[in-house]
Amino acid sequence: MTTASLDQRDQGLSQERLDATEVLIWWGHKGHAQVDEATVDRVQLRANDGMGLILLHSSHVSKIMKRVLGTRCSLRHRDIGERERVWNVEPNHPITQGIGDYFEIEREELYGERFDIPAPDELIFVSWFEGGEVFRSGVTYRRGNGKVFYFQPGHETYPIYYQPEIVRVLVNAVRWAAPLRIIPGVAGIKAEPLEPARRGG
Amino acid sequence: MTTASLDQRDQGLSQERLDATEVLIWWGHKGHAQVDEATVDRVQLRANDGMGLILLHSSHVSKIMKRVLGTRCSLRHRDIGERERVWNVEPNHPITQGIGDYFEIEREELYGERFDIPAPDELIFVSWFEGGEVFRSGVTYRRGNGKVFYFQPGHETYPIYYQPEIVRVLVNAVRWAAPLRIIPGVAGIKAEPLEPARRGG
Amino acid sequence: MTTASLDQRDQGLSQERLDATEVLIWWGHKGHAQVDEATVDRVQLRANDGMGLILLHSSHVSKIMKRVLGTRCSLRHRDIGERERVWNVEPNHPITQGIGDYFEIEREELYGERFDIPAPDELIFVSWFEGGEVFRSGVTYRRGNGKVFYFQPGHETYPIYYQPEIVRVLVNAVRWAAPLRIIPGVAGIKAEPLEPARRGG
Amino acid sequence: MTTASLDQRDQGLSQERLDATEVLIWWGHKGHAQVDEATVDRVQLRANDGMGLILLHSSHVSKIMKRVLGTRCSLRHRDIGERERVWNVEPNHPITQGIGDYFEIEREELYGERFDIPAPDELIFVSWFEGGEVFRSGVTYRRGNGKVFYFQPGHETYPIYYQPEIVRVLVNAVRWAAPLRIIPGVAGIKAEPLEPARRGG
Repeated sequence: MTTASLDQRDQGLSQERLDATEVLIWWGHKGHAQVDEATVDRVQLRANDGMGLILLHSSHVSKIMKRVLGTRCSLRHRDIGERERVWNVEPNHPITQGIGDYFEIEREELYGERFDIPAPDELIFVSWFEGGEVFRSGVTYRRGNGKVFYFQPGHETYPIYYQPEIVRVLVNAVRWAAPLRIIPGVAGIKAEPLEPARRGG
Repeated sequence: MTTASLDQRDQGLSQERLDATEVLIWWGHKGHAQVDEATVDRVQLRANDGMGLILLHSSHVSKIMKRVLGTRCSLRHRDIGERERVWNVEPNHPITQGIGDYFEIEREELYGERFDIPAPDELIFVSWFEGGEVFRSGVTYRRGNGKVFYFQPGHETYPIYYQPEIVRVLVNAVRWAAPLRIIPGVAGIKAEPLEPARRGG
Repeated sequence: MTTASLDQRDQGLSQERLDATEVLIWWGHKGHAQVDEATVDRVQLRANDGMGLILLHSSHVSKIMKRVLGTRCSLRHRDIGERERVWNVEPNHPITQGIGDYFEIEREELYGERFDIPAPDELIFVSWFEGGEVFRSGVTYRRGNGKVFYFQPGHETYPIYYQPEIVRVLVNAVRWAAPLRIIPGVAGIKAEPLEPARRGG
Repeated sequence: MTTASLDQRDQGLSQERLDATEVLIWWGHKGHAQVDEATVDRVQLRANDGMGLILLHSSHVSKIMKRVLGTRCSLRHRDIGERERVWNVEPNHPITQGIGDYFEIEREELYGERFDIPAPDELIFVSWFEGGEVFRSGVTYRRGNGKVFYFQPGHETYPIYYQPEIVRVLVNAVRWAAPLRIIPGVAGIKAEPLEPARRGG
């Protein structure tokens, strides 16, 4: 496991590093706009080829999340340190193993509906917030040959990534997102017919 | 109904024209790479706001289709003028009204699986090709507040758009894709709590 | 519009009445177990043929809902008259026209996750409950040629069906669920080949 | 691995046997109507609790498949021993590992669209038939805590289950469908509030 950051060469995400990466976890705060389009291109294509892509918290403003989902990814938000209760709606999914019916986060930034994302392939978690909102806080997608998981918890001013349930979800998600195999993408395949095609031009 | 082309100002798709458009039908052949990123941005955001987007035939290589779907959209292809039979798998969908169990296209370019698209929200048509392939030839997606329909028939060397079943599908699709209302997108909503939130930081 | 009840002939749902019905709204309280299997059969097949089926509130214990969904439809519940806030996650859907970002129900029975239903074709509403739960309170499915909408609000001790937002959702849902056409189901179709099949036994 | 048949006690599927079963493979030919409702009830509830359920070939006429899917499962059919080509549309799925872009079955009974099933959670295989039809020949569903896979090949007069690709798909499917854990179903959970609910009746 290693870390990439914006101040590294190729923003830490050179083609060589990506080609050696099976699962990429994305977390950002103020730097989303500084990510180059070329970096986004490289990450997207590697993710399409099979690299797992785990998008955390404010990734909804990242270029890469908008790129793979095709929508604005906008949402309601406020930061008053309210309570969140994360409900497990897919107890039979690899990502929720070891997680009970729900778990609580004592203080978290609110992200609320409507969350402007495509209907997910799988809805894993739905969260309750003290201030009156709900949120689809764990959702999966397949894009190309790769898997994508968005997971909302993780505001930088609270100790969220030290909470055991959160760690468990992340470990589960990395295993789930790891590629069965990488399938390098192609622009298209010019193919001969497999059956006698009688009407050739 | 009006037409936009690459040689017009703003590539025919100025913000003003898009703002007056309820459904945009996209067809291209050799010019896909000439479409500017700025044009793609405008079309995507208007589609996210609610404009219907109908993507025809080789739109799978267009920037806008890749932008809203987030994958390579690659496929098998050849052009020998073979027969296609389009099977209707959702006879209760608005797009298939007036269409029977199937219809035939006497000569068409092959597009075959695997078609590298996200799992569609709705699978409408699946095609059989004389040379031995199959293809998900009609698929729908919601992106933001807008609807997207990809429809494969339409190679430029055959009289496909004169065929009554094709015309019927397109008319149906325009009606289906027309917005119930346009909802201008926002970057996010900073919201006050709706309930007493006792743990404010 | 007419009403059917258990004490009528054929439990109010004879084949003749069903054949004349375009959309059936189901509400029950204590009588779910009294519905005959034969009645469930008739309703299911008519719904599969295209009749809209709107399942309200405690329909999750009805035989017909379990029949069309194939799961136990179990959930968390309590009745202390707590507040519910219904969030609109598909503002571009016919069922949510005229509904804002959310609406509130002052007193309602809790239904909470995990709601043991198949992943819906469309997730329309997600509810927040004062006692700490969330619920997928509006979901759609297609079954056969018919549309199904489950909508959770409606406990019998509160004036929920007098609330304007609820009425609006129901009117919208009836229009959405009305069949484009009824397609009488068949057991199967024995078909001649459409192409020369060279390997016939 | 063991086998159950209709002439055994409890039709081979007693509660004790089912409770010891992690994945059940269903194949039938003429006996579908002889399966008792009580047997179907036991199988469905065990599958809802987490047992994998693999439905082969003419299972589309079985009571258990209609029970978990909620539709007629009707289709086009004929048996002239024509060629089928099974296309792999999800190369990144556990069920398709070791399978290439497609594989062929030299002689098979035709099953063709429209296949009256709910939109699958995942579309894995789409088949081409020599006589001109297509078919969604591999589809997955989640029902309760269990996974369901329908796989079309397997007519009794051809040596289909001896073909290496078929064996590979079945082995993959058994591994995929095996439960992460069994979660015994409940009718419902009467729950205390998790937050102070101020409006209790």
